[in-house]
Amino acid sequence: MPLKGIVVVDLTRIISGPFCTALLGDMGAEVIKIESPASGDPLRAQGAVKNGLSWYYALFNRNKKSVCLNLRKDEGKQVLAGLLKRADVVVENFRPGVMDKMGFGRERLQQINPELIYSAITGFGPDGPYAQRPAFDFIAQAMSGFMSLNGEPGQRPLRDPLPITDLIAGLYSAFGIVCSLVGRIRSGGGEQVQTAMMDGIISFFSYMSANYLATEKLPERSGNDHPIVAPYGIFKAQDGDVAIAPSNDIIYARLLEALGLEHLGQDPRFVTNESRMRHRSEINALIEEKTCTRPKAYWIERLNAHGVPCGLIQNLAEVFSDPQVLHQQMVLETEQPDCGKVKMTGFPVKLTNRPCRLRLPAPALGEHTEEVLLNLGLDAARIAALKAGGVI
Amino acid sequence: MPLKGIVVVDLTRIISGPFCTALLGDMGAEVIKIESPASGDPLRAQGAVKNGLSWYYALFNRNKKSVCLNLRKDEGKQVLAGLLKRADVVVENFRPGVMDKMGFGRERLQQINPELIYSAITGFGPDGPYAQRPAFDFIAQAMSGFMSLNGEPGQRPLRDPLPITDLIAGLYSAFGIVCSLVGRIRSGGGEQVQTAMMDGIISFFSYMSANYLATEKLPERSGNDHPIVAPYGIFKAQDGDVAIAPSNDIIYARLLEALGLEHLGQDPRFVTNESRMRHRSEINALIEEKTCTRPKAYWIERLNAHGVPCGLIQNLAEVFSDPQVLHQQMVLETEQPDCGKVKMTGFPVKLTNRPCRLRLPAPALGEHTEEVLLNLGLDAARIAALKAGGVI
Repeated sequence: MPLKGIVVVDLTRIISGPFCTALLGDMGAEVIKIESPASGDPLRAQGAVKNGLSWYYALFNRNKKSVCLNLRKDEGKQVLAGLLKRADVVVENFRPGVMDKMGFGRERLQQINPELIYSAITGFGPDGPYAQRPAFDFIAQAMSGFMSLNGEPGQRPLRDPLPITDLIAGLYSAFGIVCSLVGRIRSGGGEQVQTAMMDGIISFFSYMSANYLATEKLPERSGNDHPIVAPYGIFKAQDGDVAIAPSNDIIYARLLEALGLEHLGQDPRFVTNESRMRHRSEINALIEEKTCTRPKAYWIERLNAHGVPCGLIQNLAEVFSDPQVLHQQMVLETEQPDCGKVKMTGFPVKLTNRPCRLRLPAPALGEHTEEVLLNLGLDAARIAALKAGGVI
Repeated sequence: MPLKGIVVVDLTRIISGPFCTALLGDMGAEVIKIESPASGDPLRAQGAVKNGLSWYYALFNRNKKSVCLNLRKDEGKQVLAGLLKRADVVVENFRPGVMDKMGFGRERLQQINPELIYSAITGFGPDGPYAQRPAFDFIAQAMSGFMSLNGEPGQRPLRDPLPITDLIAGLYSAFGIVCSLVGRIRSGGGEQVQTAMMDGIISFFSYMSANYLATEKLPERSGNDHPIVAPYGIFKAQDGDVAIAPSNDIIYARLLEALGLEHLGQDPRFVTNESRMRHRSEINALIEEKTCTRPKAYWIERLNAHGVPCGLIQNLAEVFSDPQVLHQQMVLETEQPDCGKVKMTGFPVKLTNRPCRLRLPAPALGEHTEEVLLNLGLDAARIAALKAGGVI
């Protein structure tokens, strides 16, 4: 596995940070998740809990070890310093300044381990006017402009149903950490990797940001209409809806052929994407007049055979029994000690020679405390004393 | 820069692939974008075009070199083979099988350069029942289940306004490539990195997938309500809306305090998140009764000072003049030869010692053909012959 032997000290909780470190763990890193002895990561109590296990926690914490450590106590801090000395990476998603207050600011980390890569995931960035504000996905979605883009025309701004700003920041953090590792292998030296929930989602605005910055015209919410492509959208078939998305003139011509609408090819209202944008409702109506005469399966087969992107609008039950999704092993099942089987989504990046594997189920709280501290050189008596003192 | 000297041959077009290689270029890789001599990447003609430049193309192709190469001609393929021999990475986002038909399938690439990391971004995966279907972001959004989650309750499934499945797949591809680079540095050997638009978005379903897999209950579209947290949402202030998101009981208590609603702390309808979920409209109404008495700015300052996540719902004009966004350098401005200045979103990952830089503006079509071919050892006469033959 590509990150085998890379040691990650994981101080994160909830979503963005644990997602980042799960991605590193999936790639083979040894992820040591530090949790408070009292209750651990709050995610342990969130989402559907089955046989005492949150499947949400299980998904975000696979391939990790759990070590209990009370970081408010000096002895806990000493243990952490010892772990950081031997680590390659530390990841945290506290509010800026919390690490400093704990005595683990950038300079101290540099002293402890000059080769350490230190990833900080924040809502807004490590400094600047909003740095001290508490962050939360919904707020980053609102402030970043994302919600102003999402939703139906004429209706209110709408959140993304996924904690999208957490996830993008977590994935960028994982990318940045591995880039920094390459830099360190080649030229030495640790550094800080900064990712922010706001910055991540803004970097995803693609043509929306490019067009706004070029024209200073605000994009309007367009629902299922694509703001720069037509036709495109959801169309009624005889027994339900299909999604159809011809992305350019060539594929549009194939769509007309597949529908038996070749005569529209010369219609001046529809000759260019621009003219089709102006006559969007007319071209959509002409397409739907055809699609509603036959069932979904017919159109999905026929349009795809003609090279026109077309698919079902699936719900999660359909997705997680879809033959392609299963073929891609996007549903994993594993045995969780004491909790029975657990299912979770699979690995989104597939390396042919060094593939991701489910090496460890999500850990019980503190499951690896003793193992990790023994490896660190603490003896059994010391570990017992730390336990008695509520440090671990 | 961490990827300095890493050579990426970029066969991609449109979104997912160019996004991936732009991320590698931002980190210092030498990205050689191969474009067809006739018209190049179709993105050059998409989005708002200013002084002959698509700002959309400019954003997705910064930090790259452009080489024209006709890959339908044998001589073009010879040049490509020469480039691949010296490259570290090749990235493509063709439909599965296209590389094989061009004569650059996995085995051939392995022969040309056993150390080559070969990233293939597809819609559905390299094989399986849907592998040969044409892919498009909208279809992946529909089939993956994303659209079934997005939207208002009781209304139709809704697309993400961003080409989200392209972008996630591109970012995962960049992450996978750099992981594979670490693996290669440490143990040698190239391999294939596979990412699919469907797999990427499915891996983002987080508690939605975890809860569905645990309970087999389909999530309903919940608009701006969070399906497992209350209160949470958009609230009217005197002069507009604010987003408020207290994520747990502690922050909920702070919210009550900030609003002067401490007496609700003992109200049995609202004592736990679960009970607040059942009485969501009541708690929301009580909150809004307070928020509507004062302006937005008042609440944003007051709630954040109390540690309650709260922010404006901004549009892109507000975002791109927001002091925090500017502080984070999320708007870059550069001079584009012959096209004047161009603005684009900034770098979402900030490395303190090896930072991303805008080294090269997006290239003119074929701008670096001669430079790259000379470097490859072709002489001026050979280059002139290739040009005359329509190969470059």
